[in-house]
Amino acid sequence: MPSQTSHSKQFLKNYTSLTQILTDKKLAALGDAYVNFVYSLAMSNRLKKPFGKKVKGAPLANAVRKAGLRKLLPSRIDKHVLSDAAEALLVYAWLNEVLTLEESAKALEKNEDLETGLVQLLTKATERIKL
Amino acid sequence: MPSQTSHSKQFLKNYTSLTQILTDKKLAALGDAYVNFVYSLAMSNRLKKPFGKKVKGAPLANAVRKAGLRKLLPSRIDKHVLSDAAEALLVYAWLNEVLTLEESAKALEKNEDLETGLVQLLTKATERIKL
Repeated sequence: MPSQTSHSKQFLKNYTSLTQILTDKKLAALGDAYVNFVYSLAMSNRLKKPFGKKVKGAPLANAVRKAGLRKLLPSRIDKHVLSDAAEALLVYAWLNEVLTLEESAKALEKNEDLETGLVQLLTKATERIKL
Repeated sequence: MPSQTSHSKQFLKNYTSLTQILTDKKLAALGDAYVNFVYSLAMSNRLKKPFGKKVKGAPLANAVRKAGLRKLLPSRIDKHVLSDAAEALLVYAWLNEVLTLEESAKALEKNEDLETGLVQLLTKATERIKL
């Protein structure tokens, strides 16, 4: 097995608050690709065959609310901003190596309900991220 | 940095030829999510800001031809089968730990031309995969 090198993340800004991470739309765009891959991997493991699937906005948005992160976002926002927040936080946690791809996929694999798995991941990410 | 655990890949069949890998549509569906993430990561590094982008079929299909893999596919196929072949091979290489996500993203980051980067990755994958 090749040894793991630290993730390149020079492209990340120096964030000083969770709100800055959660509201970074560019980070959410990268996070979208990340979350779809993690979910596809999780479903491959659960179904015991390779599987590719996109995560929709609703479970991501609901998970942000249930993980108690809604209060960190501006008061008037649409659902899209909520799902972006989840994607941004999850890829930030991966880039900063506080949540591995394997641990993330495992959480989504073990929870039948995607939203529940996402709440677990967002909670872990929030606990582990040091700013 | 959390230590890397081996990738879960119990869902993979026992492939006995590259052709089997290249023509596995389910593997290509997972590979699609993988390739989009790797490319998004590569572009984030190149542009020095987070970026999310899907890889289109044409560069994938062209790279399969240029990497000399066309002869391993059935004679009458459409372009979609070619791009699927690239996605299947790249995620197979990652799952079997012969090509890391970091090395793959680096190759796409360093080559201005996406197709050239993909040819490099497909060539490495082909060389390193032991069946």
